[in-house]
Amino acid sequence: MKLIRYGAAGKEKTGVIIDGVKYDTSAFGEDYNEAFFENDGLNRLSAFVEQNKESLTQIADDERLGSPVARPSKIVCIGLNYKDHAEETGAAMPSEPVIFFKSTTALVGPFDDITIPKNSVKTDWEVELAIVIGKKASYVEESEAMDYVAGYTLHNDVSEREFQLERNGTWDKGKGCDTFAPVGPFLATADEIADVHNLRLWLTVNGETMQDGTTANLIFNIPYLISYTSQFMTLLPGDIISTGTPAGVGLGMKPPVYLKPGDVVELGIDGLGESRQTLVAYAKN
Amino acid sequence: MKLIRYGAAGKEKTGVIIDGVKYDTSAFGEDYNEAFFENDGLNRLSAFVEQNKESLTQIADDERLGSPVARPSKIVCIGLNYKDHAEETGAAMPSEPVIFFKSTTALVGPFDDITIPKNSVKTDWEVELAIVIGKKASYVEESEAMDYVAGYTLHNDVSEREFQLERNGTWDKGKGCDTFAPVGPFLATADEIADVHNLRLWLTVNGETMQDGTTANLIFNIPYLISYTSQFMTLLPGDIISTGTPAGVGLGMKPPVYLKPGDVVELGIDGLGESRQTLVAYAKN
Repeated sequence: MKLIRYGAAGKEKTGVIIDGVKYDTSAFGEDYNEAFFENDGLNRLSAFVEQNKESLTQIADDERLGSPVARPSKIVCIGLNYKDHAEETGAAMPSEPVIFFKSTTALVGPFDDITIPKNSVKTDWEVELAIVIGKKASYVEESEAMDYVAGYTLHNDVSEREFQLERNGTWDKGKGCDTFAPVGPFLATADEIADVHNLRLWLTVNGETMQDGTTANLIFNIPYLISYTSQFMTLLPGDIISTGTPAGVGLGMKPPVYLKPGDVVELGIDGLGESRQTLVAYAKN
Repeated sequence: MKLIRYGAAGKEKTGVIIDGVKYDTSAFGEDYNEAFFENDGLNRLSAFVEQNKESLTQIADDERLGSPVARPSKIVCIGLNYKDHAEETGAAMPSEPVIFFKSTTALVGPFDDITIPKNSVKTDWEVELAIVIGKKASYVEESEAMDYVAGYTLHNDVSEREFQLERNGTWDKGKGCDTFAPVGPFLATADEIADVHNLRLWLTVNGETMQDGTTANLIFNIPYLISYTSQFMTLLPGDIISTGTPAGVGLGMKPPVYLKPGDVVELGIDGLGESRQTLVAYAKN
């Protein structure tokens, strides 16, 4: 099943994609949030769609897409989880996963604009495979970790490198600016992805390929990351773990290249669709 | 006004403290959450209490207290914000505030047990003044920052020093374990605190004083922290900013001293009451 959320930001309605066509599921009556995942929502939604598939209303093509999951309790990110990316940033190869947080206020839709923060000079891109957690996870064994996956989605882990690395503190400062987490276009339930460790992921800026990697090169794989993260905090249904980015970010260029207003970033992962964001300068509302 | 939440964990009801007596405000019909603060809840609650003060029901003394605010979108923490604490940890004096996040799943009541995580050997204490944000804050000027404060509360920023400092990554790994954020006993609205930059704060372990400081010694003060944090992310109503801890943490002792099952931590801040937590070993439910 492929889940979407659509409509005005903050007022998204729910839907599904069937054979490439988007259908509204508002009549199901629940947002795709913590309570939904916690209460077997995926199975109940699947039954609802099966029962009502003749009468579902198609969604207009020009409707905005939001994040396919509602604002979660947390967006956990894994740093330096591809060998080639760790090398390009000059960081040491991680002996165990690097964990940081993205403020959940950064969450936006897959085709929304990315706002370059006020005083930012180093806004950068990162295509990532994101895991959406399906049930409460605490001290999960690696062998059972895949049972905790609701599905997967595409995430641009937008990063301000000066805020992240040069402003005295943890990486969190450069990861959670508003619009820094475009997620979607859709959440693919786990059964849709035959081998999550063999997906090509790519990103272009203004049509030029910057990142072209594969999840086969993850240093720490999906079950390991879920198990590992759950040793340090409880993951709630609907929470996101973003699994890191392959080589090709702006910080790694010689000299570094950063995003400017008008730039267009496009990205995609096998089986998880594509997204596209235009960079805009910060302007006071 | 002093706000409390009480009752079983996850099912807290709301209340207020008037002249030292706890009263139920369930009939007000709203939890103390993002929507409450966003929609002028403090003023509406104050009017409700005024209108109904003769008929409010007293809360039994043996009721559990929860966090006085519902789970927020984020708990932002400031590191090394007292000169004496920065010195004791051997860290450089911060040139600008250190920001990290605490997983919101760590939130518990002020008298709840603190669970020492599985495989933890360095669980430590940190008494802190926490700010509760009253309205959406983005790029706030320091001169206007105090308008964004709903109130203040007491927070024990419990920390696992090995997870935080020796496990390859940002501090977040050692800050967000379950039960690592005892908050309360109550939220004091901003008008209750005459001078937030002149409050004594203290912490004892098994009756022995470990921390005894004053917010007069904050390196970066409250309006600066709100303004600064809001440059990197949007703060939502009900969000918590914990402002850092004075000297006297276990990590700073020579040799370091960490918490063990059965230890009792008590802490307090002038005008914000006291809390007390007992340490327990992790046990699988």
